[in-house]
Amino acid sequence: MGSKVIYLDNAATTQPNGEALRRAAAEAEELFYNPSALYGGGLAAREQIRLARESLLGRIADARFELIFTSCGTEADNHAIFCGGRRGNVVTTAGEHAAVYAACTELKNRGVEPRFAPVGRDGRADAERLLALVDDKTSLVSVVHVNNETGAVNDVAALAKRVKEKNPRCLFHSDGVQAFGKLPFRLTEEIDLYSVSAHKIGGLKGTGALIKRKSLSLPPFVYGGGQEGGLRSGTENFLGILAFSHAAEEKFRGLEADAARLSDFREALFHRLGDRFVRISPQDGSPYLLTVAARGLRGEILQRMLEERGVIVGTGSACSSKKPYSRVIEACGYGKDVLGGVIRISFSPSTTEEEIGRAADALNDAARELGERIG
Amino acid sequence: MGSKVIYLDNAATTQPNGEALRRAAAEAEELFYNPSALYGGGLAAREQIRLARESLLGRIADARFELIFTSCGTEADNHAIFCGGRRGNVVTTAGEHAAVYAACTELKNRGVEPRFAPVGRDGRADAERLLALVDDKTSLVSVVHVNNETGAVNDVAALAKRVKEKNPRCLFHSDGVQAFGKLPFRLTEEIDLYSVSAHKIGGLKGTGALIKRKSLSLPPFVYGGGQEGGLRSGTENFLGILAFSHAAEEKFRGLEADAARLSDFREALFHRLGDRFVRISPQDGSPYLLTVAARGLRGEILQRMLEERGVIVGTGSACSSKKPYSRVIEACGYGKDVLGGVIRISFSPSTTEEEIGRAADALNDAARELGERIG
Repeated sequence: MGSKVIYLDNAATTQPNGEALRRAAAEAEELFYNPSALYGGGLAAREQIRLARESLLGRIADARFELIFTSCGTEADNHAIFCGGRRGNVVTTAGEHAAVYAACTELKNRGVEPRFAPVGRDGRADAERLLALVDDKTSLVSVVHVNNETGAVNDVAALAKRVKEKNPRCLFHSDGVQAFGKLPFRLTEEIDLYSVSAHKIGGLKGTGALIKRKSLSLPPFVYGGGQEGGLRSGTENFLGILAFSHAAEEKFRGLEADAARLSDFREALFHRLGDRFVRISPQDGSPYLLTVAARGLRGEILQRMLEERGVIVGTGSACSSKKPYSRVIEACGYGKDVLGGVIRISFSPSTTEEEIGRAADALNDAARELGERIG
Repeated sequence: MGSKVIYLDNAATTQPNGEALRRAAAEAEELFYNPSALYGGGLAAREQIRLARESLLGRIADARFELIFTSCGTEADNHAIFCGGRRGNVVTTAGEHAAVYAACTELKNRGVEPRFAPVGRDGRADAERLLALVDDKTSLVSVVHVNNETGAVNDVAALAKRVKEKNPRCLFHSDGVQAFGKLPFRLTEEIDLYSVSAHKIGGLKGTGALIKRKSLSLPPFVYGGGQEGGLRSGTENFLGILAFSHAAEEKFRGLEADAARLSDFREALFHRLGDRFVRISPQDGSPYLLTVAARGLRGEILQRMLEERGVIVGTGSACSSKKPYSRVIEACGYGKDVLGGVIRISFSPSTTEEEIGRAADALNDAARELGERIG
């Protein structure tokens, strides 16, 4: 048994792809010019950004779409919500990431009514009840592609189609942060806006993108020098953008094989867990994520005991670690005995079968010890 | 004469400090954990961010202030303008960077009246006329610290004091992007908000900060997981933040000596230029920047001719390179013969006396050739 730490909190963030990082860092040091500058170095930097943009966009969308680099998935979500949902009401779900959920909540202060559709036991949006909230005053619908806490996959293409059938003028946005580079998927014409993030697939924190339908006219989120087609001012994050593109290149190359392998690992892991563990993640959810709850135990204590055993896991969303229970898992309808014990185990392509086995042993071992300790 | 390119567009962006970049990249690869995570790696990452925050803040402010990391100076400016100027009117100047100017213009669409005070011939704000625009409905005054196109330095401490005397409830913001790490300066109590950027002092593009008075309650600009004290959600740009801190460490160490040396270089450069060149930058402006105009010539053609001679300069602000003339230089009151020929020459601590000499020769040579060509 090796002493290397087993990192299974990849839904919170991944280790940067070392090769992608070193390549981008060298490029950023060499081609450091302002991409808006009109001399050779500036033009060359701009061309590198163009190539990264085309490459990233092409992985998920065709020429009807364009990609705006942002500083993170959260900013992309905020851009979509605040600039896409400017009147009437905005329909979203109780299973959204905080970036969408908090932005929608803030809409109230801006004269727009947020409406939250319930989610099922696994965190998936309730399609019928979501659609029932859409009316002719709805300016935007936002549904997360992969629920970042349960891994449930929403069929956003089908949802977008049904939303448009009900209200063709309503925009459809999806937070694709946990889907991009992990699930085989391409944007369909009914999806207007889609958010992605670099650091969930081996890129750097501080880089994301909002993908939008070209024919959609959206106000800027950040105003200034007019970068990113006027939609996102600020000198471009050259290093982050290049690292994102390089990391995606590798991530997408292995996408299907990784998904198949990790799906098997996920099932193997769950089947090795003892009876105390309740499964929250659905079987048809993201292969990258298994959320369970150790009934009657405290997740954050388990997390610490696992850390002592060399296994790093999450407890619900790291982004909202200040709240006692996960808002999303609560929305799934679980009681306190489950809510308190939520553990999110999330994989990366470099996760090995041996690590899965060791993680299962550590989980069982820690849960047994903690269970005995509390009687 | 060496063949190395002489880069004199450091006000647009600087080459990343190689040592700072490599150190931060190694740290980002090693300590890649989500800084919100509750296990050891997350806590260690959070601690590194805390140290960087304290270090950067301490360079310019005391314990009455706090620092919010943003994705760039533009975002920091937008945060200050949109979240600080939410009612009545906002007073700013005609000499602002596009990040402030465009945000203030957008305020009109949000029910807030923007008021633009004129600037003098050198781009400095006209203090009396600025103050005359401030009334009891003014919610925010924003004045750039160092004009990014002329280098003129506004005495923001004195302006802030006078603004508060007139309207104590009015907030005062300054865009300090071209001042931070270049001018000896510390925030005074009348300054509520101050924007800085990493890539102007050897840090990376994609990192900035908004410094704010602690006792000031400001709404968030980006909503989500509650990072940065709830004011700027999104997983922290760990690499960018650490590189910013490392680069600032070196930049501030040499601040006074660099300023004195570059001030001499700036004067030497101007005095070597021929009669065709009109000086726009004031003598008491930033030591880092000399803006001149080649009367009757086209700046962008000169820029290209200089590039052929191995000298890289700017033409007004790179951030708004799509407009025919610089809005800011136009506001200084120059006519078309000057406006068309603006060249911004901006230095870094690594600029040498020999480079200054070669740049002067290239400028004179190119201007002579272009002048002869157009007759």
